[in-house]
Amino acid sequence: MAISGQSIIGNSQSNSKGAVFQAFDTARGKPIAPDFHSADRQDIERACTLAQAAFDTYRETGQEARARFLETIAQQILDIGDELILRAMAESGLPRARLEGERGRTVGQLRLFAAVLREGSWNDARIDPALPERQPLPRVDLRLRNIAIGPVAVFGASNFPLAFSVAGGDTAAALAAGCPVVVKAHPAHPGTSELVGRAVQQAVASCKLPEGVFSLLTGVGNALGIALVQNPQIQAVGFTGSRQGGLALMQAAAARPQPIPVFAEMSSINPVYLLPAALAARGEAIAGNFVDSVTMGAGQFCTNPGLVLGLAGADFERFAQLASQQLAQRSAATMLTVGIHAAYQQGVATLAAQAEVRQLGRVAAADGCQAAPALFIASAAAFLSNPVLGAEVFGPVSLLVACADEAELLQATEHLEGQLTATLQMDEGDKALARRLLPVLERKAGRILANGFPTGVEISHAMVHGGPFPATSDSRSTSVGSAAIYRFLRPVSYQNLAQDLLPEAVQDANPLAIWQRRDGQLRK
Amino acid sequence: MAISGQSIIGNSQSNSKGAVFQAFDTARGKPIAPDFHSADRQDIERACTLAQAAFDTYRETGQEARARFLETIAQQILDIGDELILRAMAESGLPRARLEGERGRTVGQLRLFAAVLREGSWNDARIDPALPERQPLPRVDLRLRNIAIGPVAVFGASNFPLAFSVAGGDTAAALAAGCPVVVKAHPAHPGTSELVGRAVQQAVASCKLPEGVFSLLTGVGNALGIALVQNPQIQAVGFTGSRQGGLALMQAAAARPQPIPVFAEMSSINPVYLLPAALAARGEAIAGNFVDSVTMGAGQFCTNPGLVLGLAGADFERFAQLASQQLAQRSAATMLTVGIHAAYQQGVATLAAQAEVRQLGRVAAADGCQAAPALFIASAAAFLSNPVLGAEVFGPVSLLVACADEAELLQATEHLEGQLTATLQMDEGDKALARRLLPVLERKAGRILANGFPTGVEISHAMVHGGPFPATSDSRSTSVGSAAIYRFLRPVSYQNLAQDLLPEAVQDANPLAIWQRRDGQLRK
Repeated sequence: MAISGQSIIGNSQSNSKGAVFQAFDTARGKPIAPDFHSADRQDIERACTLAQAAFDTYRETGQEARARFLETIAQQILDIGDELILRAMAESGLPRARLEGERGRTVGQLRLFAAVLREGSWNDARIDPALPERQPLPRVDLRLRNIAIGPVAVFGASNFPLAFSVAGGDTAAALAAGCPVVVKAHPAHPGTSELVGRAVQQAVASCKLPEGVFSLLTGVGNALGIALVQNPQIQAVGFTGSRQGGLALMQAAAARPQPIPVFAEMSSINPVYLLPAALAARGEAIAGNFVDSVTMGAGQFCTNPGLVLGLAGADFERFAQLASQQLAQRSAATMLTVGIHAAYQQGVATLAAQAEVRQLGRVAAADGCQAAPALFIASAAAFLSNPVLGAEVFGPVSLLVACADEAELLQATEHLEGQLTATLQMDEGDKALARRLLPVLERKAGRILANGFPTGVEISHAMVHGGPFPATSDSRSTSVGSAAIYRFLRPVSYQNLAQDLLPEAVQDANPLAIWQRRDGQLRK
Repeated sequence: MAISGQSIIGNSQSNSKGAVFQAFDTARGKPIAPDFHSADRQDIERACTLAQAAFDTYRETGQEARARFLETIAQQILDIGDELILRAMAESGLPRARLEGERGRTVGQLRLFAAVLREGSWNDARIDPALPERQPLPRVDLRLRNIAIGPVAVFGASNFPLAFSVAGGDTAAALAAGCPVVVKAHPAHPGTSELVGRAVQQAVASCKLPEGVFSLLTGVGNALGIALVQNPQIQAVGFTGSRQGGLALMQAAAARPQPIPVFAEMSSINPVYLLPAALAARGEAIAGNFVDSVTMGAGQFCTNPGLVLGLAGADFERFAQLASQQLAQRSAATMLTVGIHAAYQQGVATLAAQAEVRQLGRVAAADGCQAAPALFIASAAAFLSNPVLGAEVFGPVSLLVACADEAELLQATEHLEGQLTATLQMDEGDKALARRLLPVLERKAGRILANGFPTGVEISHAMVHGGPFPATSDSRSTSVGSAAIYRFLRPVSYQNLAQDLLPEAVQDANPLAIWQRRDGQLRK
């Protein structure tokens, strides 16, 4: 498939003469053809107008029709074949195996939402039948179902050019909910974005849906994204990226004449707790797995373990030593973009420059865009007093924090900002301490793990990829897993409407055969 | 019970020397003893610190214990007896029957949430068991449940001194979710607030809960409320009131270092559609019921029908005449506060001053704080071009809008801001037009009624009292009915935790006997 370098607007493409840019091969240090043309104001306006025009039709496609649409997108993505993998490799610097896995994840995610649609609980169908004889007042007939919130703006992330990008989790959840989607492609992988965008465009056409269900805006600079969020047709925003980027979108959304919700997944240092019994028994194995997790994918995961907390003493010192030895055996790896690499270099340098921080180990970097994994250590007292030690550095780096005792471990935990994850390395003998930590961790994180590592996010029903600010802008949701559909739904209540005017989800005959909550009790 | 005039801080009371104010009897035009002392910074700080200290304990009280607590609050409120009704009558100008009904509503609301807690679906318990043999990667064990979001600030509304105030819907939902609550009492009914606040305080004590579960701050001026929203312990805000007030809280919450969600219910003109067949067949009955709805409670309901839309012609003119005749038979009624009365006078005068607006009728007011019900009429062309005609005027006034044809009726509907409700007066012959209107109304409103009037909000499972901005700040929720609990919950996922460390809601043995979603399928 030839890459046009233009935005996809419904069933056509833009002819924008906007700012020209190219993708960049960080491994080879050179740009990749062809030229891309940034979407202009007209493109934004047209994409959003089409999305709004498609909304009422699309949100009322049956759940089976919408499920098939998601499955068609999945198949269209697979049908692109190796061209997609090769382009993504060049644009992201990520290896083939990782991108093939990510494609499987993307396809699996779309199929999961298809299953969610068919199961039907997302309707949250509720029926409170009329009680004409009730005293002192009769009760009216009330029925509730969820409907789609409206056209959604999705911002592709750089670190998952497939699974968190054009047809990634946010898009899949919004389309499943019945929302048309306008994607702002990440400029780090514009070709990958266009290939996937065309696959979605074809799925829209082959499923005979209104063209406005999907558009893809390509471009560089922040103005395009802000203008998209400001467009009055857009009713919600999905974003994965930096804290700074997420905050800018939150502010733009809050400043609209009609404020809208933003689901931004931003910043997390994902603390790992080395509880004493586990550390004594399995310190070496934990050290190896920990360094695997820190360095995986050049550390470019939202769930990268950037902080390790333990009790000061011989076992913790041994762990620091073992982890440093492991680190020394790892290689530097190419980062996604020149900008991410520069920010990583800066972040590591800032950490190294803190008087209270000691460098445990650092791998040598081979070329300009490679990240050199690094480990540091500091005391809990330093962590508590110096905010630099708690800031996210995106890349393969982690800070070990030695706490004087359990009280200081709890104090450091209370000191944490909101996190996507918190991990306990623990054995049977650590349960008492785990029980003290768990209530605090529940307040701080969206996912709590025992004896694993936070990198690796399962796409399933019980996953929460979210958490208190700044991990996300709204802790009441997840951006991964089937519960993500609820971000893009809102309830509507129907009072005394005739059966033939009611949506199928809340009709007495229950033609969709879904769970309905009748007078508060679930039944089919 | 003697009224102290002081804030309630946990199990004690403030000794604030803050600004002194009194309640005001609008019917008699005179202040009511005793003096109240505005909460000071220390009171806010102490209430929020206590709330945070209570949080981890309170949120993990069993669902049965929390249900009993809500029932105890209900009983304590009833136990205040007639003193509560008399004080509320004096402070609000509302009649006895209305306040007795509202007390029943308040108590019923608390008991409904007790039932919701026992049923257990609010946990959203999900279990995805481990799949150790899965290829290419094994699946970890994942479990999800909802936990309380944190201490909640609740702002009492003036128009429901019991049901939307100190122990009203927001407080009941937040306490049910497991959130400690700090209420900012509405200064229009400080004595009523204190009496109810003491009832809650007693329930906290008799249920042996941590004192920080509930505090009540009394005071005048906006600074107190803003400072409460800015307190770092507060994690969510519930508000019912004016658009201006809600926007100020939304801005304060968004500007915090850690932004928090605000559930503000603000402004709605609740359009009523007179569809042709119904209007022809039942115009007179509809006119009577409509005027009842407009004038009920001096028009001081969020769901007051402030806009009537129909097709221009003889039937619509007859309706205007009939409604004017009905209006002439109603009396002026005392409003809640001097401020609300002044705003009503101003709003009606502004409407009357528009060149395109004609006054159909207006009742004479008897004294300074009485609202004179009024009806106006204008063309849809005027409604579409002049934003004054679409602004909420809080009180017993409504604007009839005559549309040239169905297309203009739809155009006027698209022109509406977000609404709490939309009502169709319709007969069998109106179904085709209703089907054209319904998709637009679903986008515009939280509740759609057929052949009723929007005043009267049932407290049940299928109720939505919410809607797109500016009806509320977050259309994805409701402030009335059992679904309101979800505003104050957030999901947490547990990965590979041992059964004895997992919360009961997601243990395999299901000791709470609640619905659990296992691999995506609901079962008990």
